Amino acid sequence: MRHAQEHDPANDDRPLAGRVVAIVGATGGLGRAAALACGSAGATVVLIGRRVRALESVYDELVAAGASEPAIRPLDLATAGPAECAETAAAIEAGLGRLDGLILAVADFDHLARTASTDPAVWLRQLHVNLAAPWLLFRAMEPILARAPAADVVFVLEDPARMRRAYWGGYGAGKVGLEGVAASLAHEYEHSSIRIHGLRPGPMRTALRGRAFAGEPDGPPPAPDLAASEIVRWLSRPPARPG
Amino acid sequence: MRHAQEHDPANDDRPLAGRVVAIVGATGGLGRAAALACGSAGATVVLIGRRVRALESVYDELVAAGASEPAIRPLDLATAGPAECAETAAAIEAGLGRLDGLILAVADFDHLARTASTDPAVWLRQLHVNLAAPWLLFRAMEPILARAPAADVVFVLEDPARMRRAYWGGYGAGKVGLEGVAASLAHEYEHSSIRIHGLRPGPMRTALRGRAFAGEPDGPPPAPDLAASEIVRWLSRPPARPG
Repeated sequence: MRHAQEHDPANDDRPLAGRVVAIVGATGGLGRAAALACGSAGATVVLIGRRVRALESVYDELVAAGASEPAIRPLDLATAGPAECAETAAAIEAGLGRLDGLILAVADFDHLARTASTDPAVWLRQLHVNLAAPWLLFRAMEPILARAPAADVVFVLEDPARMRRAYWGGYGAGKVGLEGVAASLAHEYEHSSIRIHGLRPGPMRTALRGRAFAGEPDGPPPAPDLAASEIVRWLSRPPARPG
Repeated sequence: MRHAQEHDPANDDRPLAGRVVAIVGATGGLGRAAALACGSAGATVVLIGRRVRALESVYDELVAAGASEPAIRPLDLATAGPAECAETAAAIEAGLGRLDGLILAVADFDHLARTASTDPAVWLRQLHVNLAAPWLLFRAMEPILARAPAADVVFVLEDPARMRRAYWGGYGAGKVGLEGVAASLAHEYEHSSIRIHGLRPGPMRTALRGRAFAGEPDGPPPAPDLAASEIVRWLSRPPARPG
């Protein structure tokens, strides 16, 4: 086992060596897979999420896999407003000095439900976590991302056609809106060093999937590792050269 | 001029006679036109919005046009949560006893702006007004709407392709999400007495349009009356008959 302290960055030829990548929702199915994939590819990973014990567990997995020592930043997206997101960005800047990637793998989904039996407070929380919080975090980290040679921002989306069906509640509204945010930001940052990505990972073998679909007649869908390796591939591309 | 007090509902053959229609955002360009169109078609109109003086002005126009006496319900959508929306629904039920139509003509748009220069508080307010508040109001009024022989709910949307371009901020995120909400609700209520409509009125000669587009090389777009008459047409259809 290679330990973080024994690691020599100068001789590290892994694709994300020397880069800092923040992963929001780092204890979810895809977030954890993305953290491990980015860490294994050489990045210093900032683990952001609500459940501290679960974040520590991903931290331990990263260290065991030989990744650079990760950072943990607890943040409850349900109550995170502009100030909390600005504090998170400031902590990353102060602690690590740079940010090359921001992976917004957030998901707040309980279960499919009729609108008439949906608690409005839950719907509002889901809208905030799935749509407002990712935008607020991007907004807060944008100045740091803009100083990197090339930065990648990944919004994890859902199949928009599925979200337009019945019963998806605040999760569906949030994910549809987030798709619009990602598309709009991709347009706005088209000629900049910040590259905006929308990831639609498709069905994955995660806890969220289990809550939405009780039975899987075709067997369980694939693990989120494939989507995580796609994220690493995006982050590994060299910066665009002028001219 | 026919005055409200002289009006005899039994001899009223106007298409919306005897019906109650709530219009949220009733002082905006489309909201005002929809209020006048519904009132002229015989509906008792509930005017909902933030600016009381402007609501009173629409009230006066309705009375002058011979409409049934309207109701006014002041509501600031920027701060309207589940409780305020439930109070609004309870007031309509107590005062008028029924609700046949809900027209969600809300719009909170300042100007096109870069993300990096967008105040997060403004973005959050726009998301709430344009997306959360319409859903909360529908959620609160759904039980009253469900008791009408046929009820129509109209979500006023934007061109989704335009909202995916740069600089639309919280307005764009909200309107994209609202399109998903309307589509999802249309699916959920497909076999019920509540009919869900998404209205994309296209360019209209409104104050909002003036803030987004400084010049109109092809001349000013049409007034919102055409979209308002489309709303009346939807609300005038007879209830679906079983079998």
